Amino acid sequence: MIWTRHHVLSLAEFTPEEYDTVLQTASSFREVLSRRTKKVPTLQGQVVANLFFEPSTRTRSSFELAAKRLSADTLNFAPGSSSLTKGETILDTAKTYLAMGTDMMVIRHKEAGVPQAIADEMDRLGVKVGVLNAGDGQHEHPSQGLLDLFTICSLLDPNNPRLELLQNKKIAIVGDILHSRVARSNIWSLTASGADVHLAAPPTLLPKWFTNFVADDALPRKLSLHWSLDPAIADADFVMTLRLQKERMATHLLPSLREYHQQFGITRDRLKLSQPDVKVLHPGPVNRGVEISSDLMDDPEFSLISQQVTSGVAVRMALLYLMGGGKAG
Amino acid sequence: MIWTRHHVLSLAEFTPEEYDTVLQTASSFREVLSRRTKKVPTLQGQVVANLFFEPSTRTRSSFELAAKRLSADTLNFAPGSSSLTKGETILDTAKTYLAMGTDMMVIRHKEAGVPQAIADEMDRLGVKVGVLNAGDGQHEHPSQGLLDLFTICSLLDPNNPRLELLQNKKIAIVGDILHSRVARSNIWSLTASGADVHLAAPPTLLPKWFTNFVADDALPRKLSLHWSLDPAIADADFVMTLRLQKERMATHLLPSLREYHQQFGITRDRLKLSQPDVKVLHPGPVNRGVEISSDLMDDPEFSLISQQVTSGVAVRMALLYLMGGGKAG
Amino acid sequence: MIWTRHHVLSLAEFTPEEYDTVLQTASSFREVLSRRTKKVPTLQGQVVANLFFEPSTRTRSSFELAAKRLSADTLNFAPGSSSLTKGETILDTAKTYLAMGTDMMVIRHKEAGVPQAIADEMDRLGVKVGVLNAGDGQHEHPSQGLLDLFTICSLLDPNNPRLELLQNKKIAIVGDILHSRVARSNIWSLTASGADVHLAAPPTLLPKWFTNFVADDALPRKLSLHWSLDPAIADADFVMTLRLQKERMATHLLPSLREYHQQFGITRDRLKLSQPDVKVLHPGPVNRGVEISSDLMDDPEFSLISQQVTSGVAVRMALLYLMGGGKAG
Repeated sequence: MIWTRHHVLSLAEFTPEEYDTVLQTASSFREVLSRRTKKVPTLQGQVVANLFFEPSTRTRSSFELAAKRLSADTLNFAPGSSSLTKGETILDTAKTYLAMGTDMMVIRHKEAGVPQAIADEMDRLGVKVGVLNAGDGQHEHPSQGLLDLFTICSLLDPNNPRLELLQNKKIAIVGDILHSRVARSNIWSLTASGADVHLAAPPTLLPKWFTNFVADDALPRKLSLHWSLDPAIADADFVMTLRLQKERMATHLLPSLREYHQQFGITRDRLKLSQPDVKVLHPGPVNRGVEISSDLMDDPEFSLISQQVTSGVAVRMALLYLMGGGKAG
Repeated sequence: MIWTRHHVLSLAEFTPEEYDTVLQTASSFREVLSRRTKKVPTLQGQVVANLFFEPSTRTRSSFELAAKRLSADTLNFAPGSSSLTKGETILDTAKTYLAMGTDMMVIRHKEAGVPQAIADEMDRLGVKVGVLNAGDGQHEHPSQGLLDLFTICSLLDPNNPRLELLQNKKIAIVGDILHSRVARSNIWSLTASGADVHLAAPPTLLPKWFTNFVADDALPRKLSLHWSLDPAIADADFVMTLRLQKERMATHLLPSLREYHQQFGITRDRLKLSQPDVKVLHPGPVNRGVEISSDLMDDPEFSLISQQVTSGVAVRMALLYLMGGGKAG
Repeated sequence: MIWTRHHVLSLAEFTPEEYDTVLQTASSFREVLSRRTKKVPTLQGQVVANLFFEPSTRTRSSFELAAKRLSADTLNFAPGSSSLTKGETILDTAKTYLAMGTDMMVIRHKEAGVPQAIADEMDRLGVKVGVLNAGDGQHEHPSQGLLDLFTICSLLDPNNPRLELLQNKKIAIVGDILHSRVARSNIWSLTASGADVHLAAPPTLLPKWFTNFVADDALPRKLSLHWSLDPAIADADFVMTLRLQKERMATHLLPSLREYHQQFGITRDRLKLSQPDVKVLHPGPVNRGVEISSDLMDDPEFSLISQQVTSGVAVRMALLYLMGGGKAG
């Protein structure tokens, strides 16, 4: 297929063809990453600006490395020492980086919609700058959704990861779903594949109305809600846990970390309910002993956490490559 | 001409030939920046250290990008995590970067004279390291002055920007002139061109004695002071507004932002006094609705703000290139 | 010799052959640094992650430059904006950078043993990632010890720096020895060479039991303790002063900086006790007028401080090169 999506802001409208293109392209870049010289000249002379209004070492490093391995130059925007403290608007900051000659912008912001607003402004100005949402508030984190998808599909068929491999697989998403942009992006991608997606969380973190946001969709998405862990992970092929923000305690949405772990923490024992070859995912950073028991996290028989990080670089290379006008894989 | 200036610290002694050399060299680099691969190997293997003792994202990114597009390696000095907190002197910090093998240093500091002091030390040591002043206190910001000049001259003749194009043009500089290093650098460059330069500000931000600093100069500089906006912008070809530091309110130099905007803010209505094709410049970041009305800032018919940012990369490439021993354009 | 040390964590077990290999390799890289294009393609496509849990501009810049001059890509971990504030363990942070594809990790941490723990974890995982200790608590700072050694040996024989040149040279180490990781690394390297090493400090900063840590060693190390300056520097060939942390005053280990300088500060006058061609070293940053008088620091006849910084880049290139599997010089 010909890739026509200039910005990657949300997985809500991703088509099955687009998912497959990302998976195939990431697969070819993963091959590059296994070489000693892990670099290709694809984006030589182009500039990728990482505008991380909300700080993040992990995701920024992953994007920075993806850009460097495509031979792009990178600029990092550091909010602490920035003009934002001088009263400049976010759009003006983005336009400044545009005027400097930025070819692609990777945006993270604590408010939902900021990457969309910047993309709209770029389109309004008629410039060919691609905008990639690296996490906006509680809205979406599409590259995380895609790297989780790539991690799972690559496990099922390393040589040919593709969406249809998830057909009828049972996948549980467990944790602070209400506040999670990772959950929202994964719900779009996993249900698009035909997987049977089960959400599990305490009622304060998973209200009944939550899934309304996928209601109007054209695809036949299979999505169930649970307020306890066992029905979600029973016979599951994959269990995806979410990071628990400790701030949730302060706002009385949870009684204690200990109690949360007892009810929703993933342990070796709990996983006996799942498929024998069940795998566990976590977007990181992990609170060991809270979302997942420490020994399980380190057990390569169960944990895909390290593969997720590796997939992240390959998937972000794929996205920058496709947005930058590369031919689809 | 042969470029002999090893440091760029101030525009006070720039000759017309030097201005023209910068303009021509920047013009050739602007052509590089319009290519898909915006890179030349000129400074391959050389090291440009950005020593920003006063934080700045915008200017540092511009210099970093200029250096990278000349294929130099860059080092960024981050004052927060530096040895300065451990009591090291600024000259010792500079000498450390010298000893590491830095070829050029770009210095910003909140105190006037620091780049000069570092340049003097480099000369005393007999080393060939070029020092570029990226803004020192309220003294000068020469690369900003040069990029403003380049922006204006490029508008007047895109193929051959040169100083003489400004002969007899009327240019207003409006705002917090007293505290502005941008104003000081622009006064040197614009009056050197033979332009008719008019300053406008409230008396607290433009004392009568202000222009004494150009009094002893050999060139016939045309420079007028006004304590109201209209005479400065009447029939002006260019209006340059300056950033208003909000700290000025705290020190009682200004009554309120609202009142400042009413008296000195640039609006579509005020500009009717100027030439029909008048253009507006601002060094950024802009306080929308204070120095300039928001709609005017976004109107490409009037605003050159985006071009200034783009010019910044080309002019800084030119300066690094010339200081690094490249042949003058 | 064939270089087999995959991690560089401590100089305690360095063999004379290893010291000589580092010295010879650094010597060949110093030649690269004297060229206009100071770059070699050795580590092209490899990734060096600088994980500086304790902030440092000087050492991080030196490692970053060393990596870039070997054509590696670099990632900088910024603790302020990191996942550590979110509760992730240090080992998990290191494993995240491993999973991204890091080939070598340069680690600084305020706790002794952290680089070792990370190296152990990498070995346990069976991955070929080299770990370099860039300073861990009060334990060791091996690259500083090696760059000091290289600086001294290069002075004694610029074309062929080697360990045996130090045989029977008298070297004084002066200052806050108890709390200094630099002192510990230098004690290992300098005594390994057969030099006669003399430590001098106030008793609070040099307890009698201090040298116990070298007691069980196989080499015949010559190491003496003094609680006054003169016997240590008498007839010395080299005097190495250590940075005095101003925090020591707060904890009542020292009466005042002034008194410290009077008793242990290195001045032109005090050096009359030493060899006529004595040289002074300091790891930097220097508190001028405390550890060393300001005029002496700037006198190239005595001071090797600037050469130490230059040596740092060459020695770190050598270490990254050797750890990365390069053939020994």
